[in-house]
Amino acid sequence: MSEAIRDVVIAGSGVAGLSAAVYAARADLDPLVLEGDEPGGQLTLTTDVENYLGFPEGVGGMDLVQRGREQAERFGASFRHGSIESADLEGQPTELALSTGATLRTRALVVATGASARWVGADGEDELMGYGLSTCATCDGAFHRGDDVLVVGGGDSAMEEALFLAKFADSVTVLHRREELRASEIMADRAREHDDVEFRWNTELLEIHGSQEAGVTGATLVSHPDGHPTERREAGEDATVETVDTGGVFYAIGHEPNTAFLRDTPVQLDEGGYVQTAAAGDAWATTATAADGVFAAGDVMDREYQQAVTAAGMGSMAALDAEAWLEANATASATDAGSIPAEAGD
Amino acid sequence: MSEAIRDVVIAGSGVAGLSAAVYAARADLDPLVLEGDEPGGQLTLTTDVENYLGFPEGVGGMDLVQRGREQAERFGASFRHGSIESADLEGQPTELALSTGATLRTRALVVATGASARWVGADGEDELMGYGLSTCATCDGAFHRGDDVLVVGGGDSAMEEALFLAKFADSVTVLHRREELRASEIMADRAREHDDVEFRWNTELLEIHGSQEAGVTGATLVSHPDGHPTERREAGEDATVETVDTGGVFYAIGHEPNTAFLRDTPVQLDEGGYVQTAAAGDAWATTATAADGVFAAGDVMDREYQQAVTAAGMGSMAALDAEAWLEANATASATDAGSIPAEAGD
Repeated sequence: MSEAIRDVVIAGSGVAGLSAAVYAARADLDPLVLEGDEPGGQLTLTTDVENYLGFPEGVGGMDLVQRGREQAERFGASFRHGSIESADLEGQPTELALSTGATLRTRALVVATGASARWVGADGEDELMGYGLSTCATCDGAFHRGDDVLVVGGGDSAMEEALFLAKFADSVTVLHRREELRASEIMADRAREHDDVEFRWNTELLEIHGSQEAGVTGATLVSHPDGHPTERREAGEDATVETVDTGGVFYAIGHEPNTAFLRDTPVQLDEGGYVQTAAAGDAWATTATAADGVFAAGDVMDREYQQAVTAAGMGSMAALDAEAWLEANATASATDAGSIPAEAGD
Repeated sequence: MSEAIRDVVIAGSGVAGLSAAVYAARADLDPLVLEGDEPGGQLTLTTDVENYLGFPEGVGGMDLVQRGREQAERFGASFRHGSIESADLEGQPTELALSTGATLRTRALVVATGASARWVGADGEDELMGYGLSTCATCDGAFHRGDDVLVVGGGDSAMEEALFLAKFADSVTVLHRREELRASEIMADRAREHDDVEFRWNTELLEIHGSQEAGVTGATLVSHPDGHPTERREAGEDATVETVDTGGVFYAIGHEPNTAFLRDTPVQLDEGGYVQTAAAGDAWATTATAADGVFAAGDVMDREYQQAVTAAGMGSMAALDAEAWLEANATASATDAGSIPAEAGD
């Protein structure tokens, strides 16, 4: 509690947070960026980014993140380890309890904590994540030339991952817990028509076998003709359990916004846990949340587009919104209290 | 009228149009980009872009635009001279009459025609725009640490620019042709109360001095106690003409969205002429306009942020929205008409 009250804290060091940091730093707001649990965010899981405007030959995901960080630091943004464990966003300044044990106070907060890939919950996944088990085919597909691999999921992104993996793997088997895909017709057709992509319906993953040295070597699957086999098996129904050889497992069951620390705050989340931002004016949604002085940008509030370039755009908007809010807020307080700046009254 | 019906035409070759082109081309939609009257858009007026994420050392405005164009072309986007003179957006396909005399038909249209900053009309502005003369304090303010700078304008954005510039410049002098500001009370008060912001009332800019090598070095001003000095001087009245030293001049007399061709279409414009886009879902404004198959991105629909990185983000969103619309539209028509694709019925 001994630290000075900050003007802007940015939670998250992915593309959205970095872009917010560049803008806030250039506005002389001396922003502090909390790196979060996955420094650099989802983009660090992508090898080549071809669609971020400005890089005709493409740019590595990690490279883009590092360039962004360098840019933010150049203008004076500072970075710190840790993420927000809990937050008091009711009054001013807001108060943030960090995973490191420290407490920060800040007038404005930009939430750019992103969304993280969901995990299945299969045995062995903690040990093998990053060692043959992956949440990103684009990042790790090339390691599986000649392998037989499994993809878990039934949506568009599972189809995309399967088709991408088919470039490298000998065979790709999509495991889906039901008999119907959530994927769009066109993506589902494309996957179904591919010679190297197979489907196992009504099937789930129970366990992944292997080691950090040998990588993934096999998987235990459970299936039931009526779908949702794990639930049925746990409820005592008969379900078929079988172990197969596999050289890799890819999770493609969606992303979850990192908003647990916002649950008991005035910030409103939608049913998927994404931050809801308000519409201001008639033509634009601002990044303002329902909590005064709290703004959101990137995957944590965008369930629709989730692109590097959209996150960067939203990050800059959040910083501009925060800057305008700080200015309006300082003046309002100064006017109300006879030129006493807001912080003096706290 | 002999050309084939296109899937996507993108009107405008600034950052928003280019980002839309990259996304549409990568989605195999074979987009055609109309370059418009100011190819490359507003960014070509900025020498150094320091706040576009990914370029820690900054990037030239023209350079970024060229890189974006190369990127779009690499994925198969094509470019054509000309702008839209008039448009029939009532049915499908939409029909566009170009300034070149040609007519295009397209299913989806991305409007990325931008907004053009108003220029004063002072002597020297053509040569010095981008070399110490700027229409964007947020972009170029940081280059003026320690300078004495001029801001031309009397509205909220002039006040904002003046206050922003006061962070860097030694002094900021606002030139306004009348004695009263158009700005809101709060913004005007804030500017008036700032120690480093001064006002010169009833004063206009006649000429800017300097060179592309040396930047802006001075300005010739005209003033008249009853306001609107240029007009009075041109009408033969006595007006005071004086030359002052200055390290930078900022125009803040507004932007005008390039939407004349949309006046008689279903696309809705706000009172400032900006395209109104719709809100879809609860957390996000899409780029969809009131005309079916017509999307908008960048400064032409964003009167709030108008940054390179926000325009790039919106461009990608518009292309993704157009892609989804084309897919939904093709499917809907195929279903309605027994698998006859939409275009067969036209």
